[in-house]
Amino acid sequence: MTKVAIKKKKSAKLKKPVKLAKSKKYVYFFGSGKAEGSSAMKDLLGGKGAGLAEMTNLGVPVPAGFTITTEACNAYFESNMKYPQGMWEQVLENMKRMEKAMGMKFGDPDNPLLVSVRSGAKFSMPGMMDTVLNLGLNPETLNGLIKWTNNERFGYDSYRRLITMFGSIVMGIDRQKFESTLDRIKEEKNVHLDTELDVDDLKRVCEKFKKIYKEETKSDFPTDSYLQLKLAINAVFGSWFGERAKKYRKLHGIADNLGTACNIQSMVFGNIGENSGTGVGFTRDPSTGQKKFFAECLINAQGEDVVAGIRTPLHIEELKKTMPKAYSDLVKIYQKLEKHYKDMLDIEFTVQEKKLYMLQTRVGKRTAASALKIAVDMVREKLIDKKTAILRIDPAQIDQLLHPMIDPNAAVKVVAKGLPASPGAAVGKVVFTADDAENAAANNEKVILVRTETSPEDIGGMAAAQGILTARGGMTSHAAVVGRGMGKCCVVGCGAIDIHEKEKYFTINDDIIVKEGDSITLNGTTGEVILGEAQLITPILKGDFQIIMKWADEFRKLRVRANVDTPKDARVAREFGAEGVGLCRTEHMFFEAERIKAVREMILSDDKEGRERALAKIMPMQKNDFIGIFTEMKGLPVTIRLLDPPLHEFLPHTEQELQELAADMGVSIERLKAKNKALHEFNPMLGHRGCRLGITYPEIYEMQVRATMEAACELAQQRIKVIPEIMIPLVGHVNELKIMRALVIRVAEEVRSKYKTRVEYTVGTMIELPRAAITSDEIAAHADFYSFGTNDLTQTVYGLSRDDAGRFLPYYIDAKILDDDPFISIDEPGVGALMKYAVEKGRAVKKNLKLGICGEHGGDPSSVEFCHKIGLNYVSCSPYRIPIARLAAAQAALKKAGKDLSKAAL
Amino acid sequence: MTKVAIKKKKSAKLKKPVKLAKSKKYVYFFGSGKAEGSSAMKDLLGGKGAGLAEMTNLGVPVPAGFTITTEACNAYFESNMKYPQGMWEQVLENMKRMEKAMGMKFGDPDNPLLVSVRSGAKFSMPGMMDTVLNLGLNPETLNGLIKWTNNERFGYDSYRRLITMFGSIVMGIDRQKFESTLDRIKEEKNVHLDTELDVDDLKRVCEKFKKIYKEETKSDFPTDSYLQLKLAINAVFGSWFGERAKKYRKLHGIADNLGTACNIQSMVFGNIGENSGTGVGFTRDPSTGQKKFFAECLINAQGEDVVAGIRTPLHIEELKKTMPKAYSDLVKIYQKLEKHYKDMLDIEFTVQEKKLYMLQTRVGKRTAASALKIAVDMVREKLIDKKTAILRIDPAQIDQLLHPMIDPNAAVKVVAKGLPASPGAAVGKVVFTADDAENAAANNEKVILVRTETSPEDIGGMAAAQGILTARGGMTSHAAVVGRGMGKCCVVGCGAIDIHEKEKYFTINDDIIVKEGDSITLNGTTGEVILGEAQLITPILKGDFQIIMKWADEFRKLRVRANVDTPKDARVAREFGAEGVGLCRTEHMFFEAERIKAVREMILSDDKEGRERALAKIMPMQKNDFIGIFTEMKGLPVTIRLLDPPLHEFLPHTEQELQELAADMGVSIERLKAKNKALHEFNPMLGHRGCRLGITYPEIYEMQVRATMEAACELAQQRIKVIPEIMIPLVGHVNELKIMRALVIRVAEEVRSKYKTRVEYTVGTMIELPRAAITSDEIAAHADFYSFGTNDLTQTVYGLSRDDAGRFLPYYIDAKILDDDPFISIDEPGVGALMKYAVEKGRAVKKNLKLGICGEHGGDPSSVEFCHKIGLNYVSCSPYRIPIARLAAAQAALKKAGKDLSKAAL
Repeated sequence: MTKVAIKKKKSAKLKKPVKLAKSKKYVYFFGSGKAEGSSAMKDLLGGKGAGLAEMTNLGVPVPAGFTITTEACNAYFESNMKYPQGMWEQVLENMKRMEKAMGMKFGDPDNPLLVSVRSGAKFSMPGMMDTVLNLGLNPETLNGLIKWTNNERFGYDSYRRLITMFGSIVMGIDRQKFESTLDRIKEEKNVHLDTELDVDDLKRVCEKFKKIYKEETKSDFPTDSYLQLKLAINAVFGSWFGERAKKYRKLHGIADNLGTACNIQSMVFGNIGENSGTGVGFTRDPSTGQKKFFAECLINAQGEDVVAGIRTPLHIEELKKTMPKAYSDLVKIYQKLEKHYKDMLDIEFTVQEKKLYMLQTRVGKRTAASALKIAVDMVREKLIDKKTAILRIDPAQIDQLLHPMIDPNAAVKVVAKGLPASPGAAVGKVVFTADDAENAAANNEKVILVRTETSPEDIGGMAAAQGILTARGGMTSHAAVVGRGMGKCCVVGCGAIDIHEKEKYFTINDDIIVKEGDSITLNGTTGEVILGEAQLITPILKGDFQIIMKWADEFRKLRVRANVDTPKDARVAREFGAEGVGLCRTEHMFFEAERIKAVREMILSDDKEGRERALAKIMPMQKNDFIGIFTEMKGLPVTIRLLDPPLHEFLPHTEQELQELAADMGVSIERLKAKNKALHEFNPMLGHRGCRLGITYPEIYEMQVRATMEAACELAQQRIKVIPEIMIPLVGHVNELKIMRALVIRVAEEVRSKYKTRVEYTVGTMIELPRAAITSDEIAAHADFYSFGTNDLTQTVYGLSRDDAGRFLPYYIDAKILDDDPFISIDEPGVGALMKYAVEKGRAVKKNLKLGICGEHGGDPSSVEFCHKIGLNYVSCSPYRIPIARLAAAQAALKKAGKDLSKAAL
Repeated sequence: MTKVAIKKKKSAKLKKPVKLAKSKKYVYFFGSGKAEGSSAMKDLLGGKGAGLAEMTNLGVPVPAGFTITTEACNAYFESNMKYPQGMWEQVLENMKRMEKAMGMKFGDPDNPLLVSVRSGAKFSMPGMMDTVLNLGLNPETLNGLIKWTNNERFGYDSYRRLITMFGSIVMGIDRQKFESTLDRIKEEKNVHLDTELDVDDLKRVCEKFKKIYKEETKSDFPTDSYLQLKLAINAVFGSWFGERAKKYRKLHGIADNLGTACNIQSMVFGNIGENSGTGVGFTRDPSTGQKKFFAECLINAQGEDVVAGIRTPLHIEELKKTMPKAYSDLVKIYQKLEKHYKDMLDIEFTVQEKKLYMLQTRVGKRTAASALKIAVDMVREKLIDKKTAILRIDPAQIDQLLHPMIDPNAAVKVVAKGLPASPGAAVGKVVFTADDAENAAANNEKVILVRTETSPEDIGGMAAAQGILTARGGMTSHAAVVGRGMGKCCVVGCGAIDIHEKEKYFTINDDIIVKEGDSITLNGTTGEVILGEAQLITPILKGDFQIIMKWADEFRKLRVRANVDTPKDARVAREFGAEGVGLCRTEHMFFEAERIKAVREMILSDDKEGRERALAKIMPMQKNDFIGIFTEMKGLPVTIRLLDPPLHEFLPHTEQELQELAADMGVSIERLKAKNKALHEFNPMLGHRGCRLGITYPEIYEMQVRATMEAACELAQQRIKVIPEIMIPLVGHVNELKIMRALVIRVAEEVRSKYKTRVEYTVGTMIELPRAAITSDEIAAHADFYSFGTNDLTQTVYGLSRDDAGRFLPYYIDAKILDDDPFISIDEPGVGALMKYAVEKGRAVKKNLKLGICGEHGGDPSSVEFCHKIGLNYVSCSPYRIPIARLAAAQAALKKAGKDLSKAAL
């Protein structure tokens, strides 16, 4: 025993393990009806490689080839542009397999095999290397090709294409140099199309192209086929870190370390003659979802001709006519593929001398409407189940359906871009003040309200306008929040525009001038500002949409409520499927013309008596609003948040408003101004607001609770069921909640005894300050429910004012310092971690603590998923985001169930 | 066995357990050389009761008596003003023991025992019930007393005192009613002193007093001694919730549920004649600490005469002359007591017919200077050890020693009160602008700068003024922070004053007018504003102070650093014992006249080139400052924080400044104004500041790092050791730190290679945003050190702007919604919990992560203790608070060691 052990050790020491190790597998072959890869290997083979492998395994005719893995690409970059050990040997080996499968030989002058080289990452990505076709051609193999096809013109046409593609894509020569040379020759011949050039012309083209190549690269066009191949592979790898690819990944949140695969495949030719062709298609209509083969083709052409748009593709019926066998094979194959993938597919094919070859398949991109129809149809066809149907729809895409949008076929002139604050599109004449907007609306004119930034006093004008455009502010600025709440198209923070409000015009980049009355179009989904009136198309909310929503409701665990401030909002919310109101911002009711006067009187009173006099005027109006909202929401819970913003938000700003108010109140304008000034705050976000107002001016909250409870009791007497939930904002210390809770209960009990009615109500709090989350165990004891106010929580956790973040946050996102705007998707490691902590601490004290969220995040799909994960009971969002939240909630439940299942299986 | 068990059960059932239960012990006896209580039982017996028990046990002559416990008091309130079961019985029983000990009988006409009743809570507390003496007197016992003392005048004198005290203190009759009656009788007799009244006069007094009593209470003065006793006990209990006591407790943070004890003690009489007397004293001088008996007495008087101040007490030598035996007993006893308590004591005594009785002992209150001297002396006397000496000094009190203070003997006219923002006192003529302050200082005039609020541009004027008074702002407002930093007396948020800057005067409560040039005095320790020039006394920082500091340094674990912005600050900090700089706010160097121009030019430049031009002007000045600070701090670490505040803080505000700048920069004033406006922020605290500036304008941080490292390298070449620690402010996301750290290292390496010098430096971050604390595990990996910026952390955790909190925070403290101002002492459950979390997460990743604090809390004793507890390495505070921090740190270490020891003992 001992001896053996010693021996082993010795031998281990003697041999170097590195030399011994077998190379990693970097190359996966497909061909002759069998592939080493499969569609499950997208990470390793990229989307294209995985699709080619899968098709091969399915018995679909695919020209033989192989895929070099993404791991090889990553290893290449890690070792400073050197192939990982063994990769090139594997490439050579698989070239041999390909030659065998095709019965031809790469670089063989007599029977030349040509190949294409294509990049193929996990995600389809513009900016990655385009295709290089016809690799392996040189003067010798060209002769072989001509002999084989008996088509000299085809041979030279293929050769000039290789030089162009290789020269431009692999070697980086300006493609225009080749194009203009070709154009000159066509001019000389006085022809228009490439196809009109004859063999001699093409020979001249090839000679001229080779000269260009030499001038630009200082070396001859390579005749060694394997050198061509190697340089092409390097170019594919290199394109992963090309500028456009990097930018695209940044924009779409794709990690830099995924790498790209490289596909090397035998050439088949759609350009041999009239018995050949090439085409692309979708298995169903990507725009409507209709179950109908949606494809186009070109006869006697290579794939690049379709993409380049030089010739107009023909309807697929043309293929049926000219090559019926190839067409019927194609139909059988696309149906087989769709059944196999159980999804709508995007395919590419080539017909070489009547024989069909498939070159690509992948899940097809589609519009929102199409996504819904395909999902619903496929469930009906029993191809997929409801869960799969739900998981397949992108909730963010649903947004398209809920708002008017610009006709995708319309030609528009985009002149500026801001932040896409509230989706949809709007067309109207420019106005610069809220009053002008309201007046225009009264005359049935459609207007766009353009402001440097909006303030609460602009609400009327915002409601009257078709859309809102601001020069300042971020995704959660006043305009953005109110716009989304109203479901109104809104573009904010459009830095390129410079507004001259008094002179009634704005400039764009100091260049274009847009005057009052000029028409513009806003695209709130993209943030684009467009000159003139673009054609809009309107949303459809029936049929497939309703079916998918119904299915989503079957699976989701999270309830979905709405943030509404008026009875009208409440009605819209119900139509979208709201299961209650998660946030009624009572202060939003304060801005209407008649009310604001009373509110201002309250704020500017010197004593409690004065405030109470003013509050008595506000109370009936507020009560009436509550009656309206409660009635719309009968039987469903309604969370009323007591006054939250700092009082100075309600103050008059102009001299005239001040004068009017002074006259109304019978005080001097000087006193009003002094008071106005005294209410100024350095950081209003962190100032005298929320329950701090309730504690220092209890009469305000008393009035609001009274209005709520009187509304509820009066409806209860009419047998309308009302479930008021009274919410205390900005609690930081449990003592604040204790005092406010006592106040609410005292007033509520007074009202209940006055009406002799037992309306049940609950009292809860916003969790919107870090301290509330941290001390959740103390706070839970005094709250019936929590609603996470993630807007303010994000501001305080990050120390980031959403009104001021515009100056650096966009840069942070661009520079990838932050992955996402934390005001759009919950910042899980920061804000999210604190929420989770608060949930756990709170539920430990009170098991049945009801938990929700009412920040803007309530309508963001990834945030909804997070809320589901940490066990909230509901999310609340603006009415127009409710369908998104419903779908996202269902997906979250299904994803979690899936994960739990796979955990259980382990 | 079984039978017996059944029987027992039965009997248990038959009797009501309540009746069976032995009453709780509510009464503790002392007398005849033995007591049931001791000095350890302060919670239960109150300070006075515990002292009486302890003295009795020590064999000191104490008139017999007993103490009703604080538990009885609490039970009394809990059961709606009913004595707890058994208490009264225990009182009666102990009255018997007292009678036996004294050989007299309560209410016995022949041999009457009289008693005093006094309150006595755990903490001495003004507003609690005063003493009622001579209880038990009525017409019958009065005769007995007269017979016993053979002194009719004494008898009636005692009786009229009882009626006055009982009537006013127990029954709430206005004492003035008795006093004026007494005065009238003295007038009639044409005498001045009570002692000049004869027996008949006093008899008349008693009759008149009884009449007053009847008129006021509608009942006769009680003759039942036990009724007198009961009513007096109720009055003691009741006084616990008297308005003054409640207010005092609120002010001093004493819990409402402690309750008071009630002491009932046999009377001894200092007013029987010339062989009797009474007195109070301290075992050492409470004002200087000198080891010298410091006492006063009155011959032929009761204790209340000393307190009332009717007669001027005599030096204790008088007692020595008239009653040498009593005096020598007193000396022996006070020495014995001091040796026993090992502390300076406050005592009360009475001599009855030459026999000495002790009535009270407790630890004596003392000035800061006295506390130091006594502690140091007692260590020398081997009475206590150094640890005890250190634990005995109140760090907050030390503050008194470090600043000039108002002579406690000066009569001053306090006209307003603000927040005590920076301690000490200042006298000067009022000025209203920083410029006026600077001009006056140039003429050697002493001024007080009075501003609505200060801004960074006032720095020069603040430095020039003796003290600063502001009408607005809280404890961490600009004026407060800068004032403390400068060690300059400062009173902020003085709401009573209304400043008319242009007219050069301010009013106080619309009443008093103070004009420019008028003298005022500020007390920054109390927040008082005083008219005229009060007499000041100056601090002493040698001798005992230095000794205590040295001892503190032996025990503390926390290092103490200073927040300094200039070389001058640094020198002061070193004098106070700073072990480095924890925070150098580089932006504070930006405000000086020459520099601010360059800074403004930088901010208002349109492009990087313009900024770099301006930065090149600032760089040499900044470098020079660093050279100065590094030189002062040679061999000690200096933390340089890169630019933190929002840029607009540096902008010009007045039209004139704007014009000058526009001329300097050669741009139009309109452009400057536009830029100025564009830099406005809604919530600058949460805006474009800290490392957000460093990321968007890297050239600023590059300049600052270059200035730091060049300064360090130049000194290193002169063999001066420099330890720069470069600190990145306002990090919220690890990526911010990564980028800034890379920038610092890049520039630092450049400088090091330029100088060919290896100055070691570290790069760390402030933890001042909740998100940084929450993601401490990510951040620690890229930081060599953390410094908790608890000012901003408190603002963001609480969602509370310190500049705006003035409108509600004082109310929150008053109403006990918050126990403490979270800007003064770290809010442990909120901010503290987050700090602890960050420490744990950070150290888990990086064991040797250096941790400190540089918020204002670094100089607050309870916050220092918290920092010690969570394991920070150092605290940093303004130079003038360093001694406080050193002492607090030592106490924290000693307290924790004590706790650890007692835990180990379990």
